[in-house]
Amino acid sequence: MPLLVLGSIALDTVKTPFEEHAEILGGAASYAAVSASFFTTPHLVGIVGDDFPKEHLAFFEKCRIDLTGLQVVPGKTFRWSGEYLGDMNNRETHSTELNVFEHFSPTLPEAYQKADVVLLGNIAPDLQLHVLDQLEAPRFVVADTMNLWINIARPRLMELLRRIDMLLLNDSEAREITEETNLIKAGRRLREMGPAYVAIKKGEHGCLLFGEKTFFSCPAFPLENIHDPTGAGDAFAGALAGYLARHFGSQEISGNAEERAIDFKHLSRAVVYGSVMASFSVEAFSIDRLRTVTPETIKERFELFQRLSIF
Amino acid sequence: MPLLVLGSIALDTVKTPFEEHAEILGGAASYAAVSASFFTTPHLVGIVGDDFPKEHLAFFEKCRIDLTGLQVVPGKTFRWSGEYLGDMNNRETHSTELNVFEHFSPTLPEAYQKADVVLLGNIAPDLQLHVLDQLEAPRFVVADTMNLWINIARPRLMELLRRIDMLLLNDSEAREITEETNLIKAGRRLREMGPAYVAIKKGEHGCLLFGEKTFFSCPAFPLENIHDPTGAGDAFAGALAGYLARHFGSQEISGNAEERAIDFKHLSRAVVYGSVMASFSVEAFSIDRLRTVTPETIKERFELFQRLSIF
Repeated sequence: MPLLVLGSIALDTVKTPFEEHAEILGGAASYAAVSASFFTTPHLVGIVGDDFPKEHLAFFEKCRIDLTGLQVVPGKTFRWSGEYLGDMNNRETHSTELNVFEHFSPTLPEAYQKADVVLLGNIAPDLQLHVLDQLEAPRFVVADTMNLWINIARPRLMELLRRIDMLLLNDSEAREITEETNLIKAGRRLREMGPAYVAIKKGEHGCLLFGEKTFFSCPAFPLENIHDPTGAGDAFAGALAGYLARHFGSQEISGNAEERAIDFKHLSRAVVYGSVMASFSVEAFSIDRLRTVTPETIKERFELFQRLSIF
Repeated sequence: MPLLVLGSIALDTVKTPFEEHAEILGGAASYAAVSASFFTTPHLVGIVGDDFPKEHLAFFEKCRIDLTGLQVVPGKTFRWSGEYLGDMNNRETHSTELNVFEHFSPTLPEAYQKADVVLLGNIAPDLQLHVLDQLEAPRFVVADTMNLWINIARPRLMELLRRIDMLLLNDSEAREITEETNLIKAGRRLREMGPAYVAIKKGEHGCLLFGEKTFFSCPAFPLENIHDPTGAGDAFAGALAGYLARHFGSQEISGNAEERAIDFKHLSRAVVYGSVMASFSVEAFSIDRLRTVTPETIKERFELFQRLSIF
């Protein structure tokens, strides 16, 4: 079944200690939808200005991303500019121009309102809730967030947490929301705030997945050269949610009601596919590495992840 | 086959934000030998003063640790006192009294000189090399180290690295020796310095094992309550080396020459057993948790580690 993907679409200017690229395709929804497209049909909800390069729209279409929910309006596309310092674990934002994104308040196309699996990409909780309100009966809602929303929109974020099935966030964010330094306690606390499943992303240390009395530790892919960390979390989210949408879809075909209940093993696999796509994403600027990835290379890296943790 | 264990034996005074215990059994060799005793017969090389409580010697004997190599000399036993702050990720040393340890320069009993598997516990590289020099034909030498030796004894440490099979160290130490922030690169660089295998311990993030074109990512056990982190690395080292000694011993019995070559899967399992025993060790002060561990609880936790990373 399709995956509804909400998020920003941006033109990024990114600098690392080694390279700089200006006005490249970016934004949470771009990374997430392209990453998800390897698993299912993404239904994209977003906004761009009339300056948005046609080649990017053509690429989205080539990825068979449904663009019915994408608004192209007069004005300038959202722009972000930032720099990665030292070992690329620290990022400095140079500028954020919201542009057409500033007053973005989407009305979902009718077909999108019936979405079963939803990814509320990293964006203001207000906007995530606004989209959630328009959904008829979503079956599995995944939401991503970041420190900015924890700091400036905590009440709305807490409201969102009560309405989603799975939360994705990184380790420092998990510690910040819960005020727990121990990540195992933080994961448990986050589950108490609403979502049945919580994935805490730890960058080079992998990812932890928490469920009801269940726990999965996903290794990190041993990467020696990271070219651009931008969008890694979004590529992770897109693949994770895309895999789950495909999984739910295949259950419908089987028609087996018992199999419809989500199995922790499928969630664990979703986290691994997320990690696979994130590991590709950082190997080049923008979504460029995702342009050359194939189902075969994804399968290969998934199997590499399996070998990493076998003993 | 037995495992030669070299290291300090101490009386520790340890403070955490919650508790304080004075003059408790500590030292790298105490933790390592007791941990190893669940897998093989440790041959202990160390020194204590005549103030060392008889009950600790009796406990070592109860663990079937061979004490031929333990010197009991007039004077005071090595003492260490320290405090764990905040979330226990930071440690402050209050005092270190070397006492009888100051001029420790062991001559190995003849039987010990034939040791096949050796653990050079975390101690001055000079002392590690001094013991290594007395061994006839060691088959597999594991060495642990720490930041202190990197800072004050780097040339001797580098000499040691060229003569060992496996190095154990934590992530900050790996970064410090190699001056590489990327741990994958650091692991590769450490192997180039000598040891065929390198295990980088990352505390709450698990452990990475590097071999020739092979790599294993060991998850961390999801611990919510750490009572005393002292000796976790030593318990890890003892179980790891103890498991390998048992493994080599069983090969001799099978007599199968091909099987004698070390298999990366056995090294991976050794790392998991190390992690299992470290996870027990931090659940109580001193070696107290290791007093109540049984082969059954070790097996149970080993299986939990397997379930943590299955997908």
